[in-house]
Amino acid sequence: MFDIKRDIGLYVDMYELTMAQGYYLSGKSDERSTFDYFFRSNPFEGAFVVFAGISDLLPLLRDMRFHNDHLQYLKSLGFRDEFLSYLSGFRFTADVASVREGDVVFPNEPVIRISGPIIEAQIVETLLLNIVNFQSLIATKAARLRIAAGNRRLMEFGLRRAQGFGGINASKAAIIGGLDSTSNVQTGFYFDVRVDGTQAHSWIQSFESELLAFRTYAEHYPDKCILLVDTYNTLESGVPNAIKVAHELEKNGHKLIAIRLDSGDLAYLSKRARAMLDDAGLGYVKIAASNQLDEYLIKSLLEQEAPIDVFGVGTRLATAYQTPALEGVYKLSMINDQPRLKVSENIEKVNLPGLKQVHRYFNGKGMFYGDGIMLEDSEASLDTIYHPHQPLKKSDVSGFAFEQLLHPAMSDGVITCELTSVTETARYAASRINCLPVEHKRFYFPHVYKVGISKGLSELRHKLIEQAFNSR
Amino acid sequence: MFDIKRDIGLYVDMYELTMAQGYYLSGKSDERSTFDYFFRSNPFEGAFVVFAGISDLLPLLRDMRFHNDHLQYLKSLGFRDEFLSYLSGFRFTADVASVREGDVVFPNEPVIRISGPIIEAQIVETLLLNIVNFQSLIATKAARLRIAAGNRRLMEFGLRRAQGFGGINASKAAIIGGLDSTSNVQTGFYFDVRVDGTQAHSWIQSFESELLAFRTYAEHYPDKCILLVDTYNTLESGVPNAIKVAHELEKNGHKLIAIRLDSGDLAYLSKRARAMLDDAGLGYVKIAASNQLDEYLIKSLLEQEAPIDVFGVGTRLATAYQTPALEGVYKLSMINDQPRLKVSENIEKVNLPGLKQVHRYFNGKGMFYGDGIMLEDSEASLDTIYHPHQPLKKSDVSGFAFEQLLHPAMSDGVITCELTSVTETARYAASRINCLPVEHKRFYFPHVYKVGISKGLSELRHKLIEQAFNSR
Repeated sequence: MFDIKRDIGLYVDMYELTMAQGYYLSGKSDERSTFDYFFRSNPFEGAFVVFAGISDLLPLLRDMRFHNDHLQYLKSLGFRDEFLSYLSGFRFTADVASVREGDVVFPNEPVIRISGPIIEAQIVETLLLNIVNFQSLIATKAARLRIAAGNRRLMEFGLRRAQGFGGINASKAAIIGGLDSTSNVQTGFYFDVRVDGTQAHSWIQSFESELLAFRTYAEHYPDKCILLVDTYNTLESGVPNAIKVAHELEKNGHKLIAIRLDSGDLAYLSKRARAMLDDAGLGYVKIAASNQLDEYLIKSLLEQEAPIDVFGVGTRLATAYQTPALEGVYKLSMINDQPRLKVSENIEKVNLPGLKQVHRYFNGKGMFYGDGIMLEDSEASLDTIYHPHQPLKKSDVSGFAFEQLLHPAMSDGVITCELTSVTETARYAASRINCLPVEHKRFYFPHVYKVGISKGLSELRHKLIEQAFNSR
Repeated sequence: MFDIKRDIGLYVDMYELTMAQGYYLSGKSDERSTFDYFFRSNPFEGAFVVFAGISDLLPLLRDMRFHNDHLQYLKSLGFRDEFLSYLSGFRFTADVASVREGDVVFPNEPVIRISGPIIEAQIVETLLLNIVNFQSLIATKAARLRIAAGNRRLMEFGLRRAQGFGGINASKAAIIGGLDSTSNVQTGFYFDVRVDGTQAHSWIQSFESELLAFRTYAEHYPDKCILLVDTYNTLESGVPNAIKVAHELEKNGHKLIAIRLDSGDLAYLSKRARAMLDDAGLGYVKIAASNQLDEYLIKSLLEQEAPIDVFGVGTRLATAYQTPALEGVYKLSMINDQPRLKVSENIEKVNLPGLKQVHRYFNGKGMFYGDGIMLEDSEASLDTIYHPHQPLKKSDVSGFAFEQLLHPAMSDGVITCELTSVTETARYAASRINCLPVEHKRFYFPHVYKVGISKGLSELRHKLIEQAFNSR
């Protein structure tokens, strides 16, 4: 139980398997299909998403197998022997194109594109959505925290409130989005990222006095000492005792690194504690703070000039509390070389048909200007991008520098892109977020980033909608 | 990677290991401690929580090991050889008392109690919090959905929007709380619960016409056929085509089970679809509905007399969207037979010291009346329970029937309670939720359930607070 990688074949919604059996039995298994992963709106009332999860997804797709105990279980659910025999030899053989992990992406543009036998592309739907939706959500939240905190240190420690085993994914995505470290040791072990942690209130309470608890910790960790000062009374007991221990450390040639505030008014307490430390000649001792922090509170604390050097963020990051799901979808856009769309009562929910590519245009200063979605096979570059639903709104992009966003990631089920380390991905994400103009990064009413479609794509969609209405 | 059970020793916050090493190096490892798991407020602006997760937690505690690759990794983080040698032989040997899984619990009462060597009780802190906080959160949300839906069928299908691997935990907890089935095949495989699923829009789109898609599905699943009717136009195309296929199924001796609505105004569409089905002599065909449903929307649909028989719930359940974390805590309440508390500026955050038991009192009709928290060793039964913070508010419980809520679950690291199946746990949960008076189950401003403390506990806490203030 809970060997998720081995059992990833069952990490699906039941309907993917009933559909897969249906495709199999009706001879449609090998029809070549293309599915797009995209989302329709940004979380956190923001204007962007940091894409994450693909480096976990690709190896899981490559290694997805149905083992004997899986097949026996599926037989007990009523699946037929001929389909189970197909599953017993299942290999994912499709092609995957994807935006690079850590890049900044926007609503309605294809972020991952899967092309291959419909039976395979269908089976992996939920796995893909589960991995990519959540990691992108958390990486985005982390990027917002980084925007609020500037150069100050940011530690993630939400595992205790994370949504079950999602804690493993959350901590990793937090680092991709811009946090400096995590408390989650399993994430450190799997992904070689920095882990941090010192002591809880229970350490302090387990000693006869706070001073003895501080002294004992400092004795064992003389060069890694951060002291939690709010167990009894922050200003009357915690900070004075920490100052005592800091002076004792100095006598032995060591330095207290920081004190940590975990309750009360952090603006008030950090200023008082800073003054007390400075008066004691401990200007080098940093102040760490935590307690239900998010990007809004960090911004507010810094506006109040709270002298906090390190922020610890837990629940609000690990669960993306404000918007706990990115509602990305996975839609069929081609089958047997025929473009497809799902008509909807709501024109904004009609998906974009066909095999698509995305171009990102840069302004003269090397900043992101806008993205254009186009038909990959018939349109090499664009002069104009059109608003997806208001064709009179358009932007001239002729002569702009541009990049292709969708890159080959798997070919015939073999990974063809480099899987970069989490630390490298985080560096790439930071460089891309840097290219996004600040007006798109505001927390309140950010400027909407331009995502347009090409003339060819607009016309194709229009034609297919007309066909759908006429064929009723 | 992602073999969570094997790597559960690293499913900790770093500070638990730095504290553990500190206890080890300062000779405190074996000091006998008691920690309580409890939460301070109910999620969803509700008045209760359905407790879940303990049946996953206990085997993980029992089997928790540190393997060689773990130890090498921890050595690379700077942990010392003597401590790593301790970890290499780590076994969880503490005692655990717990409320029964599926029971209804309330703020501030101990729900799990761990007693044993402080080094062990400390190491498992985050694992316990992660598992129990999240599963209790989801079981509670599921119970609220069940309250809204009455006897109608409730299916969970949130895996695609669940928080990463937390989806495994979410689907299981949803069943405990009252859902009938899940789409999550891995959860079905691990926990032997009912899984359900039929087809997505992509199935429909992959055929030349909706009618052909419906016919093909019905051909392969003649007795399990539910048809998704909103791909093109629900009332003009989906329902008429479903009616055709239902009549074709009848000719071959089968019956269409249901149609599924997944967009649009579900109240309007379900009434129109019901009338169309009835007019076609298909009164037995049920209507399933989904699309961002939660307990409030289900209640509203039923108040509008929408003829919906089956509700599918995804994102809002699997992520507990409205309140995506239960902020349960794990606090030291005893060490070396000395009761302990964490003083706080806020009296309501001072924890309850000592080794405690909880009694649940029943009114004359067998319904829950209130809970009383008491010192286990010195108080056998109670006549009066006192409001935890307003001692003048008290309730007479003399002569009331009562039950003990905390039961032995592990002794010396050996599981001593029965681990019931998820289905049995769900039945138990339903029976307990049934005993909770309806005024505590309202969605808006529910009546607060009485949780009092004993005189002995109140006096002990008062004495310890005074000592803490005097010793400053």
